[in-house]
Amino acid sequence: MSVVAKKAVVLLSGGLDSATTLALAHQAGYQCYALSFNYGQRAQAELRAAEEVAAHADVVEHKTIRFDLGDIGGSALTDHSIDVPDQLGQGVPVTYVPARNTLFLSMALGWAEVLEAEAIFIGVNAVDYSGYPDCRPEFIAAFQAMANVATKVAIDGKPIRIETPLIALTKAQIIQQGIAAGLDYSLTVSCYQADAQGRGCAVCDSCRLRAQGFADASVADPTRYQ
Amino acid sequence: MSVVAKKAVVLLSGGLDSATTLALAHQAGYQCYALSFNYGQRAQAELRAAEEVAAHADVVEHKTIRFDLGDIGGSALTDHSIDVPDQLGQGVPVTYVPARNTLFLSMALGWAEVLEAEAIFIGVNAVDYSGYPDCRPEFIAAFQAMANVATKVAIDGKPIRIETPLIALTKAQIIQQGIAAGLDYSLTVSCYQADAQGRGCAVCDSCRLRAQGFADASVADPTRYQ
Repeated sequence: MSVVAKKAVVLLSGGLDSATTLALAHQAGYQCYALSFNYGQRAQAELRAAEEVAAHADVVEHKTIRFDLGDIGGSALTDHSIDVPDQLGQGVPVTYVPARNTLFLSMALGWAEVLEAEAIFIGVNAVDYSGYPDCRPEFIAAFQAMANVATKVAIDGKPIRIETPLIALTKAQIIQQGIAAGLDYSLTVSCYQADAQGRGCAVCDSCRLRAQGFADASVADPTRYQ
Repeated sequence: MSVVAKKAVVLLSGGLDSATTLALAHQAGYQCYALSFNYGQRAQAELRAAEEVAAHADVVEHKTIRFDLGDIGGSALTDHSIDVPDQLGQGVPVTYVPARNTLFLSMALGWAEVLEAEAIFIGVNAVDYSGYPDCRPEFIAAFQAMANVATKVAIDGKPIRIETPLIALTKAQIIQQGIAAGLDYSLTVSCYQADAQGRGCAVCDSCRLRAQGFADASVADPTRYQ
């Protein structure tokens, strides 16, 4: 009798949340296929962090798909004429990238179908987050419903599950779970405008949420700043 | 009083269906923004056809986004180790590209949001089609429901409508509507394995459905064959 390992595609940005998600998927017994995107984001250091995290996490494969969202514009993360703000404002911030998680999950869905993977893991979080519409539970539920009719495997009775292990956790809880799963957070980069060495700016939304998370978790913060 | 023209993003492959969809969107009074993809498909002639069609259709802008679905594999249209079949079989054919329309609509959704467009037009068709899961009305409805919670504009009360003017038409009816809208079908390429001059193979699913459509519509077929 052979045992077929269950497979999962894990979206991996190189940031704290996605690295934790990968660690949790691995801990749950999945053979992990990490998927990253080079979409013209400011923080190319994030992509190098993704490579480091994937290499340390014993993934079966790590794929980085290149496409140019900068063509479409509309976000401070891909359009270099828009400044990254140094504090959280009201509503959806300018760092919102239109339809980003929709796109990332769509790419993951295609790969999961080819791999015959059971699940896609994405590190969205509805607690300590930046107000992006595509990080909310109702978005994930709607994407799942769409995926259930979009693919050949789903029609054949094997829908691909979208797994969001971080969705209800605080940043502090995320960090505690990652530490428990053996993750080395010094490999991860969260800053929207990290320098070439992967050091954070300490002032953007993402740096602030990360630093607060380590403080709240009572865990020593390994983040390097510029 | 100024009149603000309504805008639409139109997915344009360069094939018969998408070119007709663009003609119908234009006829309906939309300022059209055509969106094509270079995703490692076999028929690069299709992309040149998309440029020709867009140039003749008076679009405001035509954008081609490059990304490499060949990395993911799993389809005869992107994986050159899989042969394109010369007849329709049972079930979903090998020319199915995993999650293709999900991806294309996601890209269109991002651009539509940046443009503040009202609609996205896609030339899916549930009558004379090849059995792809992501061409069915239930897929479009599920994508619309997902889009309604995925974007900032939708949260602000302006959801982007997914328009499928061809969904209930036969291939013959599509051709008749395109002719009525002034479309020159000699610009379009449908073949899965067209040559560099855009000439069809005459034997793949797509060539067969197209030829039958012209015959059924009693319209002279301008398709060029190898």
